[in-house]
Amino acid sequence: MVDVARHAGVSLKTVSRVVNGEPTVNAGLAERVLASIGVLGFQRNQLASTLRAGRRTGTVGLVIEELANPFYSTIASVAAEVAAQHDTMLITASSEEDPDLERRLVFDLCSRRVDGLLLVPASGDHAYLRPEVDMGVHVVFLDRPGGGGLEADTVLIDNRGGARAAVDALLAKGHRRIAVLLDSTGVYTMRERLLGAREAMESVDAPLTVVEGVANPDDAARAVAGLLDGPQPPTAFFTVNNRLTVGAVGELWRRGDDAELAGFDDFELAHLMPRPLTVVAYDTRAMAGRATEMLFERVRGERAAARTEVIGTRLVARGVRR
Amino acid sequence: MVDVARHAGVSLKTVSRVVNGEPTVNAGLAERVLASIGVLGFQRNQLASTLRAGRRTGTVGLVIEELANPFYSTIASVAAEVAAQHDTMLITASSEEDPDLERRLVFDLCSRRVDGLLLVPASGDHAYLRPEVDMGVHVVFLDRPGGGGLEADTVLIDNRGGARAAVDALLAKGHRRIAVLLDSTGVYTMRERLLGAREAMESVDAPLTVVEGVANPDDAARAVAGLLDGPQPPTAFFTVNNRLTVGAVGELWRRGDDAELAGFDDFELAHLMPRPLTVVAYDTRAMAGRATEMLFERVRGERAAARTEVIGTRLVARGVRR
Repeated sequence: MVDVARHAGVSLKTVSRVVNGEPTVNAGLAERVLASIGVLGFQRNQLASTLRAGRRTGTVGLVIEELANPFYSTIASVAAEVAAQHDTMLITASSEEDPDLERRLVFDLCSRRVDGLLLVPASGDHAYLRPEVDMGVHVVFLDRPGGGGLEADTVLIDNRGGARAAVDALLAKGHRRIAVLLDSTGVYTMRERLLGAREAMESVDAPLTVVEGVANPDDAARAVAGLLDGPQPPTAFFTVNNRLTVGAVGELWRRGDDAELAGFDDFELAHLMPRPLTVVAYDTRAMAGRATEMLFERVRGERAAARTEVIGTRLVARGVRR
Repeated sequence: MVDVARHAGVSLKTVSRVVNGEPTVNAGLAERVLASIGVLGFQRNQLASTLRAGRRTGTVGLVIEELANPFYSTIASVAAEVAAQHDTMLITASSEEDPDLERRLVFDLCSRRVDGLLLVPASGDHAYLRPEVDMGVHVVFLDRPGGGGLEADTVLIDNRGGARAAVDALLAKGHRRIAVLLDSTGVYTMRERLLGAREAMESVDAPLTVVEGVANPDDAARAVAGLLDGPQPPTAFFTVNNRLTVGAVGELWRRGDDAELAGFDDFELAHLMPRPLTVVAYDTRAMAGRATEMLFERVRGERAAARTEVIGTRLVARGVRR
């Protein structure tokens, strides 16, 4: 509004009156203000809201953790592809797993009047999105559910079921000393995967060794080394994501240790890893595609209650085998 | 304009007159048209151009081949990061190596009034960008130069020097039967890499076997198999990108063949490949970072002649070694 007032050479009050349709403004002044609004592309929230109903900006926002991670670049690629089918372009922003940054990015995207938002939540509380949703911004959560009572379409992976199946398979092979490596139970997916592993262990009388704070491949290699060098070394490992799996593969290979390895997430070169492993695979493209389609269903006017869909997992043998 | 006319309830001709500032339009009508322009966010190119000079939209566009490819997702990640430091968001679009699609995406991004464009060219002719550049859109090419006489800042990798060094290293180890696998010399980077390989071969009296049309890992595996099963099998291979390198690794490993392998591009899990190889590594993040910084220098008003910068390469031994 300040920009409009300056551009039109009128007071802020005059701009406000024109925008609110008050009839007390001189016609010439009103015209200047409206022209300035046209020139500056200024839109009051109310106008933006009206606009959304009638005409779209042809952009949607995607907030992920980090684009350089293949999991998220696959999501971004599919979202962009589906958006293009709806004549829409994708603005991608990385929250770096920081709830404050997520909120800033979301507000920034909303101020650019995106038609909708695809969100892999870093935050556990999305009450802050309520005003935007009320104003007509559509939101779909993927990979992790939203929080704070905000009802929105959500597409998740069967984290718990996949982890349970992986650990069940280790148990079926006779392993009883199993170690789980994970980053932080602060992240929904990690928490669910640990729960799945624990559920599998309920069927046997054996404890599960859980190592938390394993954040990257190097950490995973160190954790594997520490456990194998300790008393009662595990005979099998379950790593909760592909980064940790890769670190574990490297260390097990380096040692020539034949401990069994199962990891959540498939990855592009898993078939060329220098030792056998089992991965919990799922269709990332399907998850991202479905989430983006749901967003466009909302943009096109779908008004059903919020829906949650879950993408299944399967165990796949990887690594080179002669 | 049609939208504005419909919204204001006036003829297209009236909208045109108002926009062109013709004094023949009734003041009430003009006001309605200008209000509609405000509401619809309609911007004539001329207005948009004025706008650009004074006020930015806080978005830049990035056109790459395909976001799912780690090389391009790294570029997108860095570009988004640098853009964020300039309070700017990144719109990413994939040209799928299609010059027509590239042009459509560029026009689409320009119509969204991006402050600038980062372009990995699919097209060899960027004369079509001239009007946009004249109107104030800043363009930086990366990974490949622009064409059609459009002068713009460009950041490239030393493709020729890197390929020459890789093949020189194979020759230094005594190899004289060397095969190059490549996709298409229609792509600048592939053409340069083939030229570099040929330059290295000039120092010896030996022919270079060149297999074109190798587009993906499976093609590469088949090409390696065909050459090794043929007469006078190569003792060394040079693959011009990481996808082909991975295919060659898989086939060489499967056969237990100890042919030497060198490939352009490093990749995340190269250190875990099940056999030794040499890669031509370079700093993708530096290339993308420099290109994005150059773009913002232009956005901030830098008016120097177009600059070209080249990122160096180095040979790195990869693959597992005990």
